[in-house]
Amino acid sequence: MAEYRVGVLGATGAVGQKFIHLLRNHPWFKVTALGASERSAGKTYRDAANWVESSEMPSDIADMVVTTCEPGKMDVDFVFSGMDAAIAGDIEMAFAKAGIPVITNARVYRQHENVPLMVPEVNPDHAELIHSQDFDPNGKGFIVTNPNCVCIPLTTALKPIYDAFGVEKIILTSMQAVSGAGYPGVPSLDILCNIVPYIGGEEEKIALEPLKLLGTLENGKVKFADLPIHATATRVPVINGHLLSVTASLKKKPASIDEVIDVVKNWKSPIDDLNLPSAPKPPVRLYEDPRFPQPRHQSEYENGMQVGMGRLRMANVMDISFNALGHNTVRGAAGCSILNAEYLHAKGYFK
Amino acid sequence: MAEYRVGVLGATGAVGQKFIHLLRNHPWFKVTALGASERSAGKTYRDAANWVESSEMPSDIADMVVTTCEPGKMDVDFVFSGMDAAIAGDIEMAFAKAGIPVITNARVYRQHENVPLMVPEVNPDHAELIHSQDFDPNGKGFIVTNPNCVCIPLTTALKPIYDAFGVEKIILTSMQAVSGAGYPGVPSLDILCNIVPYIGGEEEKIALEPLKLLGTLENGKVKFADLPIHATATRVPVINGHLLSVTASLKKKPASIDEVIDVVKNWKSPIDDLNLPSAPKPPVRLYEDPRFPQPRHQSEYENGMQVGMGRLRMANVMDISFNALGHNTVRGAAGCSILNAEYLHAKGYFK
Amino acid sequence: MAEYRVGVLGATGAVGQKFIHLLRNHPWFKVTALGASERSAGKTYRDAANWVESSEMPSDIADMVVTTCEPGKMDVDFVFSGMDAAIAGDIEMAFAKAGIPVITNARVYRQHENVPLMVPEVNPDHAELIHSQDFDPNGKGFIVTNPNCVCIPLTTALKPIYDAFGVEKIILTSMQAVSGAGYPGVPSLDILCNIVPYIGGEEEKIALEPLKLLGTLENGKVKFADLPIHATATRVPVINGHLLSVTASLKKKPASIDEVIDVVKNWKSPIDDLNLPSAPKPPVRLYEDPRFPQPRHQSEYENGMQVGMGRLRMANVMDISFNALGHNTVRGAAGCSILNAEYLHAKGYFK
Amino acid sequence: MAEYRVGVLGATGAVGQKFIHLLRNHPWFKVTALGASERSAGKTYRDAANWVESSEMPSDIADMVVTTCEPGKMDVDFVFSGMDAAIAGDIEMAFAKAGIPVITNARVYRQHENVPLMVPEVNPDHAELIHSQDFDPNGKGFIVTNPNCVCIPLTTALKPIYDAFGVEKIILTSMQAVSGAGYPGVPSLDILCNIVPYIGGEEEKIALEPLKLLGTLENGKVKFADLPIHATATRVPVINGHLLSVTASLKKKPASIDEVIDVVKNWKSPIDDLNLPSAPKPPVRLYEDPRFPQPRHQSEYENGMQVGMGRLRMANVMDISFNALGHNTVRGAAGCSILNAEYLHAKGYFK
Repeated sequence: MAEYRVGVLGATGAVGQKFIHLLRNHPWFKVTALGASERSAGKTYRDAANWVESSEMPSDIADMVVTTCEPGKMDVDFVFSGMDAAIAGDIEMAFAKAGIPVITNARVYRQHENVPLMVPEVNPDHAELIHSQDFDPNGKGFIVTNPNCVCIPLTTALKPIYDAFGVEKIILTSMQAVSGAGYPGVPSLDILCNIVPYIGGEEEKIALEPLKLLGTLENGKVKFADLPIHATATRVPVINGHLLSVTASLKKKPASIDEVIDVVKNWKSPIDDLNLPSAPKPPVRLYEDPRFPQPRHQSEYENGMQVGMGRLRMANVMDISFNALGHNTVRGAAGCSILNAEYLHAKGYFK
Repeated sequence: MAEYRVGVLGATGAVGQKFIHLLRNHPWFKVTALGASERSAGKTYRDAANWVESSEMPSDIADMVVTTCEPGKMDVDFVFSGMDAAIAGDIEMAFAKAGIPVITNARVYRQHENVPLMVPEVNPDHAELIHSQDFDPNGKGFIVTNPNCVCIPLTTALKPIYDAFGVEKIILTSMQAVSGAGYPGVPSLDILCNIVPYIGGEEEKIALEPLKLLGTLENGKVKFADLPIHATATRVPVINGHLLSVTASLKKKPASIDEVIDVVKNWKSPIDDLNLPSAPKPPVRLYEDPRFPQPRHQSEYENGMQVGMGRLRMANVMDISFNALGHNTVRGAAGCSILNAEYLHAKGYFK
Repeated sequence: MAEYRVGVLGATGAVGQKFIHLLRNHPWFKVTALGASERSAGKTYRDAANWVESSEMPSDIADMVVTTCEPGKMDVDFVFSGMDAAIAGDIEMAFAKAGIPVITNARVYRQHENVPLMVPEVNPDHAELIHSQDFDPNGKGFIVTNPNCVCIPLTTALKPIYDAFGVEKIILTSMQAVSGAGYPGVPSLDILCNIVPYIGGEEEKIALEPLKLLGTLENGKVKFADLPIHATATRVPVINGHLLSVTASLKKKPASIDEVIDVVKNWKSPIDDLNLPSAPKPPVRLYEDPRFPQPRHQSEYENGMQVGMGRLRMANVMDISFNALGHNTVRGAAGCSILNAEYLHAKGYFK
Repeated sequence: MAEYRVGVLGATGAVGQKFIHLLRNHPWFKVTALGASERSAGKTYRDAANWVESSEMPSDIADMVVTTCEPGKMDVDFVFSGMDAAIAGDIEMAFAKAGIPVITNARVYRQHENVPLMVPEVNPDHAELIHSQDFDPNGKGFIVTNPNCVCIPLTTALKPIYDAFGVEKIILTSMQAVSGAGYPGVPSLDILCNIVPYIGGEEEKIALEPLKLLGTLENGKVKFADLPIHATATRVPVINGHLLSVTASLKKKPASIDEVIDVVKNWKSPIDDLNLPSAPKPPVRLYEDPRFPQPRHQSEYENGMQVGMGRLRMANVMDISFNALGHNTVRGAAGCSILNAEYLHAKGYFK
């Protein structure tokens, strides 16, 4: 039984399509409004969207008429936003001010001091920042963001270790799938049988967002973690799934890798008991076979929501090393937004 | 004018084919004998080899009759070896004992204390180890090895920095092309649109071989460098070209990255003045555009012999970070053996 | 409620794994026995199989102990066979003789005059051939085969047109996915950014099997269709989904392409009313957008069981032309076997 | 010794870059002027072009200043044109009128009755159409075009058979490389591990251009060949090299395939004796091993100018069948233009 009528902002884009795909059978959230640009408004979704998902476009959505992204045009309980950062700022704020909560994958408000940058398994308590938002005088509208597609698997895989040992610093190389660049995104001539060793703006986000995610709430503000991260972000000819090669220095030194493995395997995520519909079980899966996890296979596990972790081992430089894998458009984008919304519902943030 | 008659051991394999391809117009070395397994012996090369090079099989080679890998069967001045490590040991030693120098890409003798593990731009002085070899009572035969396909671009790119600043430790993630696994090698079902995050045995070589390469000759022995290296080796859907993401701590701290850039740009390799036919100019090329070097393009520069270096920058963890790229079957294998042989000729090691 | 205990012959191979994957939640068929080679027998399936499916290995299957492929070792109602043709013949016959029906994807008995070569949507009546089999004196065991992975989408897409207009001759070029070659199958060095324009043995099957499939039952024998087919089979860097470019001459000439489109769109397959669990709806889906169907997307529709058809148009040479697409390891292999078994159950062939 | 100063129109585009690459060491033609859009004019080529070739940008070209595409701005003997069809028409005509011959890969004038559509090995006599052009009152300027990238390997491979047996009709499926769509061209999300079964506008060109190419000159006009061609054009994840699967009906029936093989092998192209610098030897190479030719390998032979032909065999529908392969941006585009210019020089068309 759908309890919420939800809108999707940026519904025709790649992230918007992923929201529609993931919500097609959702037990609580029913897509009832689709927002896009002037160019698409007035058309059916079938005609407006260049559908790039491998699944079929849901037939009920196909027949819906797209509107512009205006609060007055969308009669919904809250919205998911998959808009480009270039235009998301004003529109998302307009919805929040109009009393419509915005659960967004766009990066505009990620560093706003009153806005949670949130992954439910990592820092669900940051949801409390919502109380400090005064965007909507009636107290109903608010904005919640999720981080960049690399930061989500990174912080999720890191969280049990961070809590148990403390992490001093990190060196990371990412191998990122082309779907992370949207559509049309990366030209095939650039990436077929090739690697592009640079993704503009990515490394800055990887160095910054985990500090807020792993930060602590103090007096209604996030105190950022003190955690230098050096990242090298590369683009590889993979469709879905960002793979990270991570090396870390720990504050408390483990006696052996088994101690770290135990911590990861026995970790209980802070939302475990909520049994949220999109929550993967377990949120992080540790592989012992060094050949796994692989983007094309394991990023699809648990409907694309599970973070894979592999090759966890001691390192002769710094302390430990591991790989982390997350489906970049599900776990690392729209799926995380949906899990955020599920958490917010469970905790009563939607009024 | 070809001065040397050379044999290729393992001539029908992938590395052997690369030797034949690279030597097809060599000014000093002429392939006059082809050694392979019993199964191939007696056949023409055309019939014996499943040619996987993109260039055509040279017609003079195609008509040559393959022999077994025995010194008595191959009337040559020296041999290149592209044999599998599993069988290379005895055969290579037999040639050396018979007075036929062996310039090999196989790994068997890389850690032998009397055998040079050599990249001409990095440690040409190690050739002197040859004098300590007593394999051949007549003093003509000897063995010279080159390192693993990752260690060659790594040490070549690192050498100017190593000499100018000293390197304390290294963290590295490699993205390695499928040609590095030979033929048939990596199954397409494993690697199409995928990454395999592990290559058996590779990380151990990456941690060890640079220590000998960057070591110093003391009393006729190599004193290994003190340089902890932590490596994560992955396989990516690229045909040729291993890309390395490297972060390093330096002994002497540069004031800014410009100081490091100057060192790399102004580096004069120890073999610069020899003008060897296969020596790339410059041996390391530094790219300022962060999108380069890329495996599919820049690994082909200077006939596949030039090491590409990019994204040289300060790092907030450790000191500096950069990418290095080398064509794994040319610069990282057969091409390095050929350059070794050219150096040995120039220095009078062939008698 | 599972009504049948089924065994999988060749359970550790690529086709066997697909059977296990597709049957994991089957309403009628429960896998209770796994047969493989001597080498695997005695091990748990987890240890015996190199799992190459993207989904997880079902946990109940993982703990099962593999046996050799002998009727006495497998206590089942019938078996699916995914064995290599090289060994399938004797083993499949042993099962049939022992009274255990064999539903096989192997090619050994496809042309046996008493064995149905069957696609349920195309020639379900051929199941009657079972009555002519005397392999099992007790009349319980029998063998049913499905055709090659190209012939299934070809004949399924063709069937409505064949019935309405008659088909005189066909020219076809196939672009076949690497999963069709099994594991390890096609070396990545052969197929990355490349096409191999030949698949040994494939074109002969494409020219022959449709003649039996489209043949008519006369006096308990199949009278083969008179339909010359000229095929060019190529291998392309696609993971799943064989795409066929087909041109055909028709006996009865359509006035326009709309007449053909109507026939395809309004086609009612002979098993439509049976509502078999694995039957796609519709069995053939016709795309109007010329960019579809595409292997990576539309071959996954309807759980990989639906045949896609596109670009249906008049041709200035011969009469009409179209593309057909089928998921080669689901619709074109294990999935077709399962649908065959469902049909045989529905029609009472299992005793 | 360069005899001609040549300009490149559309110099910054993908085809323009290929002209520059192919002409870097040309014995007769020296690039002395680079024409591009207003946006690029005034910049050095290094700054204006997003170089996508795998070779390095020639250093002398890198320092040249780009101009707009105007005859008065480019002091050259003739120009090559790699412009988009959308803008090529007026500009090419302006050059011709100003007395500067235009050798173009753009499609605008391919069907103009006074303009040769020319492949030197196929219809060099069509150059005579130049005499019927009255674009330039002084008789120096003219326009010569080459066909589409599929039509070049198709007609070249077909020519010996066409002359010896006559060809009645053709059915063809093309598997076309992504470089044929220019840059940025095909999005990676569309083509990684996928096939797009449609290329807009392509099949019409394939059906039309060969008729002019294989036509005969009668009274100063081309009488088009009577040759129905039905084509299905697909895009595949290959970088360079269009592979064609061709089936043909012949007027004169060969007794066996050997008769056809002999014709192809013994074919002497009409420009054989001219020894043009870019002419491949032989122009068509017939492979007996059915695995060849393959795009990634054999399309590079003879500097990308040789047409590969394979799997030549009798067909049970129509008469014969074969594959043809051509490097689409070399043989199928810029390289054909250059060979056209070499032929025109040899025959004295440049004044």
